[in-house]
Amino acid sequence: MNKPENTGSGLRGVTAGTTSICTCGIEGKGLTYYGYDILELAEHSTFEETAYLLLNGELPEDAQLDAFKASLRSKRSLPQQVKEVLERIPATAHPMDVMRTGCSMLGVVEPETSFEQQMEATERLMAAFPSILGYWHRWVTHQERIETATDDDNMAEHLLHLITGKKPSDLHKRAMDVSLILYAEHEFNASTFTARVITGTLSDFHSAVGGAIGALRGPLHGGANEQADELIMGCMVGTPAAAAETIRGKLARKEKIMGFGHAVYKISDPRNQVIKEWSRKLGENDGDLKLFEISAAIEEAMWEEKKLFPNLDFFSASAYRYMGIPTALFTPLFVCSRISGWAAHIMEQRQDNKLIRPNAEYVGPAIRSYPKK
Amino acid sequence: MNKPENTGSGLRGVTAGTTSICTCGIEGKGLTYYGYDILELAEHSTFEETAYLLLNGELPEDAQLDAFKASLRSKRSLPQQVKEVLERIPATAHPMDVMRTGCSMLGVVEPETSFEQQMEATERLMAAFPSILGYWHRWVTHQERIETATDDDNMAEHLLHLITGKKPSDLHKRAMDVSLILYAEHEFNASTFTARVITGTLSDFHSAVGGAIGALRGPLHGGANEQADELIMGCMVGTPAAAAETIRGKLARKEKIMGFGHAVYKISDPRNQVIKEWSRKLGENDGDLKLFEISAAIEEAMWEEKKLFPNLDFFSASAYRYMGIPTALFTPLFVCSRISGWAAHIMEQRQDNKLIRPNAEYVGPAIRSYPKK
Repeated sequence: MNKPENTGSGLRGVTAGTTSICTCGIEGKGLTYYGYDILELAEHSTFEETAYLLLNGELPEDAQLDAFKASLRSKRSLPQQVKEVLERIPATAHPMDVMRTGCSMLGVVEPETSFEQQMEATERLMAAFPSILGYWHRWVTHQERIETATDDDNMAEHLLHLITGKKPSDLHKRAMDVSLILYAEHEFNASTFTARVITGTLSDFHSAVGGAIGALRGPLHGGANEQADELIMGCMVGTPAAAAETIRGKLARKEKIMGFGHAVYKISDPRNQVIKEWSRKLGENDGDLKLFEISAAIEEAMWEEKKLFPNLDFFSASAYRYMGIPTALFTPLFVCSRISGWAAHIMEQRQDNKLIRPNAEYVGPAIRSYPKK
Repeated sequence: MNKPENTGSGLRGVTAGTTSICTCGIEGKGLTYYGYDILELAEHSTFEETAYLLLNGELPEDAQLDAFKASLRSKRSLPQQVKEVLERIPATAHPMDVMRTGCSMLGVVEPETSFEQQMEATERLMAAFPSILGYWHRWVTHQERIETATDDDNMAEHLLHLITGKKPSDLHKRAMDVSLILYAEHEFNASTFTARVITGTLSDFHSAVGGAIGALRGPLHGGANEQADELIMGCMVGTPAAAAETIRGKLARKEKIMGFGHAVYKISDPRNQVIKEWSRKLGENDGDLKLFEISAAIEEAMWEEKKLFPNLDFFSASAYRYMGIPTALFTPLFVCSRISGWAAHIMEQRQDNKLIRPNAEYVGPAIRSYPKK
């Protein structure tokens, strides 16, 4: 039995397979999608262009990108049965449970019956996730049955339009677009690895994606941005200096601070500088930088006290708030973006599949006899 | 980076964590639940007693078992919203998609909001899975809205009663009970490992179980027993000798034969002798051994030609057929049993949790610059 040193430590440092899609943490800080640096993609690319790259391995020509975007736009309508299921989910539900159930039900109504349908299934889920989120959100908040098949140009606009009920400004649209690029892909993170383990049994696309949503829901993964938001909002009553004091108090009491440090990045999260700058821009546009300044004060205190850097989740919280997105919808937005990365990994796993089935080290009772009665 | 020899080979032989629940494949053939040999449990125990063992680490006293069974019986009723969702799933759906969606929707209506509710969530899912399967099956086959809260003594009786619409014989009830014992737990198999990866993010119970259902659905995992059934039924037109010939022909054409060999067992699957004997008993009781004899002829040919032994899935197919269970429901029965093992692993993972996040070996393009347009 091949037993790595760090047995039981969450496979940290163990290579579980090969990938062409992404590097993560090279020199402790880098992130690339198919060889392109995340900073260049966030500066020059769009989410749809980046998703095309993840799904096809190369950036699209203009005509290919137009066709991809048109195909996504054509797939925004939800089947009647899915809408009826969404209407049965109460307002008190966790929105990630809505995404998980919507994904599962879409897989019931439109099952992937052959792997040849995998790209079709990917586009359908990319187009349908904002619709599922927006339809349910407006149903439970406004008792409206909205039409999800809009003419919005891209996913960023579609999401903001459905969630807020109005067409977003160009600034908000581009801020969301960049956020979607940053969240799109991250190598063998826990939700992507979940999708690959499920795919390893040669199961269907919706089973793999549904499992990934379930993993992303956890507070040690996607759920972190909601908790970062809670922390920041708890500091909004006072000044930035008071926020820093609050953090020092929490650290002294050994409370867990979410949104800092990373399982893979050791020096910094390269996505932080991008989303931080967007958070500042959005605050300036609102003429109210307080949310940004409180966040920055927390960042500084965490560095001074613990030498911990913020990850993508931390400034995403203030950026999303500036765009008017309710906290509970933060992690579902992550789903809308990450479906592109999950899909790329599902397709890659299928190319050269082997069942993913590790061993366990047994630490239980010795063999014993069943007591005769 | 700690790189095991068999990188990319599905973590085979890599130890991904510790467990007290199960040993699997010791000396190439053994299987124990908390130290008890599967052969003794199949002989002397009941499914509910075995499930109690898996969930608590010790066999129950009589009073504990009575209380556990009574608690399970009290949880068979389905929430109205879950029934309404099941009624929207068409007859053509894959029954594993029904289980996955039913599990997700139950998690929406009755979410696990604290880990203190985990045993309650386990019992609820154990009691509700047969109800979800039976309710949907009878709805799409008989347009009946059945009452799932029956007075059936145990899960075996509840399942057979709901699926077939009548109380089962004692022989069928015990055969199903033994089948549920055999399928209950199997160490770090792909679905259980999926549940542990999802749990590693500290996500909720229903997300972990829903992901596990998605993994079990695959033909390289639970889906194998449906395919074994297909193979056997294809041979039912002829004699056992003709069946053996058919198998030799398939092997000569290098067709994949499902239900044989195992990722972990190298000598034999200890569960096979038990389910094979039950298949024979059920056939004798029917006065028609043909299904058994065809299966046995295939087993013999596979051993002669390839030295491959049948796994649990192979004779489960004939046993389930003798009990009158439609092929499409075979893998959902596996869910009803394995929820006990999944739950044990989810609770064990939570006891000393660490995010499960392996690395990948990068084999993609070198760093390249975004093309300026």
